[in-house]
Amino acid sequence: MIMERLRATRRLLNYTPKSLFASRSHPNSSEQSICRSASGFAHWGRYYEHQKRRFGGTVWAPLGVLGKASRIQCRYFGSVAETIQRDPSFSKLNSDDISYFKGILGEKNVIQDEDRLAFANTDWMRKYKGSSKLLLLPRSTEEVSRVLKYCNSRRLAVVPQGGNTGLVGGSVPVFDEVIINMSSMNNIISFDKVSGILVCEAGCILENLVSFLDNQGFIMPLDLGAKGSCQIGGNVSTNAGGLRLVRYGSLHGNVLGIEAVLANGDVLDMLGTLRKDNTGYDLKHLFIGSEGSLGIVTKVSILSPPKLSSVNVAFLACKDYISCQKLLLEAKRRLGEILSAFEFLDNESLDLVLNHLEGVRNPLPPSMHNFYVLIETTGSNESYDKETLEAFLLHSMEGGLISDGVLAQDINQASSFWRIREGVPEALMKAGAVYKYDFSLPVEKMYNLVEEMRIKLGNSAKVIGYGHLGDGNLHLNVSTPQYDDMILAQIEPFVYEWTSKHRGSISAEHGLGLMKANKIFYSKSHRTVQLMASIKKLMDPNGILNPYKVLPHSMICDGSSVQT
Amino acid sequence: MIMERLRATRRLLNYTPKSLFASRSHPNSSEQSICRSASGFAHWGRYYEHQKRRFGGTVWAPLGVLGKASRIQCRYFGSVAETIQRDPSFSKLNSDDISYFKGILGEKNVIQDEDRLAFANTDWMRKYKGSSKLLLLPRSTEEVSRVLKYCNSRRLAVVPQGGNTGLVGGSVPVFDEVIINMSSMNNIISFDKVSGILVCEAGCILENLVSFLDNQGFIMPLDLGAKGSCQIGGNVSTNAGGLRLVRYGSLHGNVLGIEAVLANGDVLDMLGTLRKDNTGYDLKHLFIGSEGSLGIVTKVSILSPPKLSSVNVAFLACKDYISCQKLLLEAKRRLGEILSAFEFLDNESLDLVLNHLEGVRNPLPPSMHNFYVLIETTGSNESYDKETLEAFLLHSMEGGLISDGVLAQDINQASSFWRIREGVPEALMKAGAVYKYDFSLPVEKMYNLVEEMRIKLGNSAKVIGYGHLGDGNLHLNVSTPQYDDMILAQIEPFVYEWTSKHRGSISAEHGLGLMKANKIFYSKSHRTVQLMASIKKLMDPNGILNPYKVLPHSMICDGSSVQT
Repeated sequence: MIMERLRATRRLLNYTPKSLFASRSHPNSSEQSICRSASGFAHWGRYYEHQKRRFGGTVWAPLGVLGKASRIQCRYFGSVAETIQRDPSFSKLNSDDISYFKGILGEKNVIQDEDRLAFANTDWMRKYKGSSKLLLLPRSTEEVSRVLKYCNSRRLAVVPQGGNTGLVGGSVPVFDEVIINMSSMNNIISFDKVSGILVCEAGCILENLVSFLDNQGFIMPLDLGAKGSCQIGGNVSTNAGGLRLVRYGSLHGNVLGIEAVLANGDVLDMLGTLRKDNTGYDLKHLFIGSEGSLGIVTKVSILSPPKLSSVNVAFLACKDYISCQKLLLEAKRRLGEILSAFEFLDNESLDLVLNHLEGVRNPLPPSMHNFYVLIETTGSNESYDKETLEAFLLHSMEGGLISDGVLAQDINQASSFWRIREGVPEALMKAGAVYKYDFSLPVEKMYNLVEEMRIKLGNSAKVIGYGHLGDGNLHLNVSTPQYDDMILAQIEPFVYEWTSKHRGSISAEHGLGLMKANKIFYSKSHRTVQLMASIKKLMDPNGILNPYKVLPHSMICDGSSVQT
Repeated sequence: MIMERLRATRRLLNYTPKSLFASRSHPNSSEQSICRSASGFAHWGRYYEHQKRRFGGTVWAPLGVLGKASRIQCRYFGSVAETIQRDPSFSKLNSDDISYFKGILGEKNVIQDEDRLAFANTDWMRKYKGSSKLLLLPRSTEEVSRVLKYCNSRRLAVVPQGGNTGLVGGSVPVFDEVIINMSSMNNIISFDKVSGILVCEAGCILENLVSFLDNQGFIMPLDLGAKGSCQIGGNVSTNAGGLRLVRYGSLHGNVLGIEAVLANGDVLDMLGTLRKDNTGYDLKHLFIGSEGSLGIVTKVSILSPPKLSSVNVAFLACKDYISCQKLLLEAKRRLGEILSAFEFLDNESLDLVLNHLEGVRNPLPPSMHNFYVLIETTGSNESYDKETLEAFLLHSMEGGLISDGVLAQDINQASSFWRIREGVPEALMKAGAVYKYDFSLPVEKMYNLVEEMRIKLGNSAKVIGYGHLGDGNLHLNVSTPQYDDMILAQIEPFVYEWTSKHRGSISAEHGLGLMKANKIFYSKSHRTVQLMASIKKLMDPNGILNPYKVLPHSMICDGSSVQT
């Protein structure tokens, strides 16, 4: 049984968090996985090459025609296809505009090349595709400011773009919006080893920041599957969650300051490097998670925790969902300060991974269990952490919370456990069509949704539940051999209504983007959304920043409908 | 030397965090200390009795005359006395108003009694005193909503009030504002032991929440000297910092949801109980730290960490400030996940405590050192934590960062160390007049301000520096036998200018309130403050919520001056 496994393998190699995290960097291995960059700082050329590899060399022909309705493409991800109209209040680009931008940014940072535009117009899932004719690459806050000031005066709509790794169509144009890509603003400005405070430009790729901090003995407080491409400005603008949230909390707690450019070009300097600052309203939080619709984040100040030397990973089986919950409670209490991840998947998820991913083996053969939990600890003392984890596992086994389990003894075992958890999205993609959802729910009710969905769909589809149990974040996925509108109609709006009824969130970490802008009322009260719309109109009266996203466009474009 | 002390006393009693924290509850023992409640939930009668004890039975005669300029009282705390005018756009209370409020709240919750009004009009330092004629005690969100809707339609200004423990005059009227005290909304609504999420009404006293959670095996993520009186709604509205911030972060990270009533009576239900929710702008952050000027917080949802069983406290001496900084860096790295407090005081502070507080002894006799550091660890394993702390202390001593030190062996020793750190404000009060400041500064520059102030003031005053080093939060205090405007003129605006020059904050944790509303530009850019004012005007067009506070009143009352 478990303790035999634990003890039999205790003499094996130890590993460092660095190598462990590096081992997670498998392409398409996570919820937000995409092709990864080589090391070194990003520039546009490399970004472009990325995208090319990402799409296997296929270049998409521009689809959209300006002024015409754009049909949102649906491939893997389930969402009712919607038809929206281009807002006629926005101007269309002309040659004077191009000349003006070239004057500000220089010829080579004003991109009209069709191939490069095709990449920037398309999200990584190929689900959303715009028809922008212009991609701008500003190199400084001043350039962003001048570009936005001009666009605002001309009523040219814009879409801010970072690594373009989002899952809800937030970072690509819907129609002909000018794309402002932040890749060229990729400098680290300062790092203070006493406080652990990093200040950098928005275009820094997360993985490069991770490497930089690693050399300083620190880590980033967030870790995502997409870290090889996503940018810190995009992370902040979308309030990215990821794998370390259970330990280090959200970006609202870790981001200390922001510099942002408003729609009219005004620069808001809130780039504080202080842990405490109670001087007026803390407006930086408006920009964290507003998906570029209130301003473009140009610089970020972030608190980075010290790197700790000991990481342990256990893969456990539970007989039912209530045991998973109890295990979480015990883990919080007994592992306390060293708990760094608490992920779960159901047996359908494991089955899918075992069937569709090469080289993945069941760590707990021969039988299949109902639920699996991956627990990671991170601390400063290897032997103590391991003893603590083992004592916790023994206690949990004796208490009947765990049916079986194994503790990784080296980096290969640890990464093989992570590969199972992070491989679920990839396995789903390989299994056929998939309808993907990302909900926050009270932990005790979370899995009921999966079970109800199974009853509703019967044999017509597989329903998969996995996610960040420690954060109450369920990734619900419905897998079918082929895409079918009838299946979708059984899922939506049922899942949104169910989530709303249980006071959950219809987007735990992915944001609303274009996909769920009109679904915001499932999670937020009408009065709250009204206030959001009022703030949007206050800060971006012409509505040029990332239009059609986050909030229902009807609330933004019709001035008379917004009351406070 | 240190390790001898450590080893000589290792066999002594251990203590629990509960008893340790309880031991801190000495009246007037902290930066925000006030008289403490007995256990049990607060209601107005008890609150009133509190205040009576607080002021030693003395009842203040109402001073202010409606419509006349109000001279701010100055006793202990240094700030240039300012004269401001009542905003004539606010209506004056009439008998119809009183009848209307009685109809909503019932006779006994509409207070016109002079004694009770005198208490509610005065802050605990007796520095600020308003002349309100009406105190309202709503018992539900619905009542708060109806009261505000009426006040807004009548243009009656209001001041939201919690435990009234603030240090910047934010929670008392300036003139005749109607006081809305939240003490009667003191119910715990729910607690989820799996997620650790507590939902409660705004009027819950912090200490009562601490007791409630203690029984459940959890703690509040914030701890303040004022916990016996302060209310969670006030804590959230002022973004209270305190002693656990270095470990658990700010309320922006820990508060999961808020219910707030806007100036026009609309209720914003954002009372989520989810760790992750990316559906639109996260507006709750606008209410965290806006000091009741954007709405009245009526309910709060907060993430509480599990209670850990082991607490250790060390009191250390450092020869210079650079050693304190290096020690902080080492503590973060070597104590990592168990570090829960890193406080510092200079020798002037210790000297003051030793001279003015009874029963306090120097833990490191016979010599005086230049700096003292209090380190606390909180973890789940008594013996491991102690070993880790001892190893860290040994390492730091060998590296020359610590000159001397002692590790508490029981609750009495631990509380005697905390008594020194928390006793500084009380000692300052006893020593004479004191000019108090609360700055956030980059840690490496923090103490330079104390030294420059000393050079500037020479022998005319004692300059004391202490605070939360782990958070970069300096409490700078200037002590003189008597209050002297000449001294004040040497301190201000120098300290604000110095802080501004080093990109610090002129209020780390106390807020702006009335005291520093006009000083906001020292910490925030003009454009940022403009946007704050625009948001204030959007959410409270008549400016009835806590007027004259937080932002310069001229930016609020004159509509034409605010542009976005």
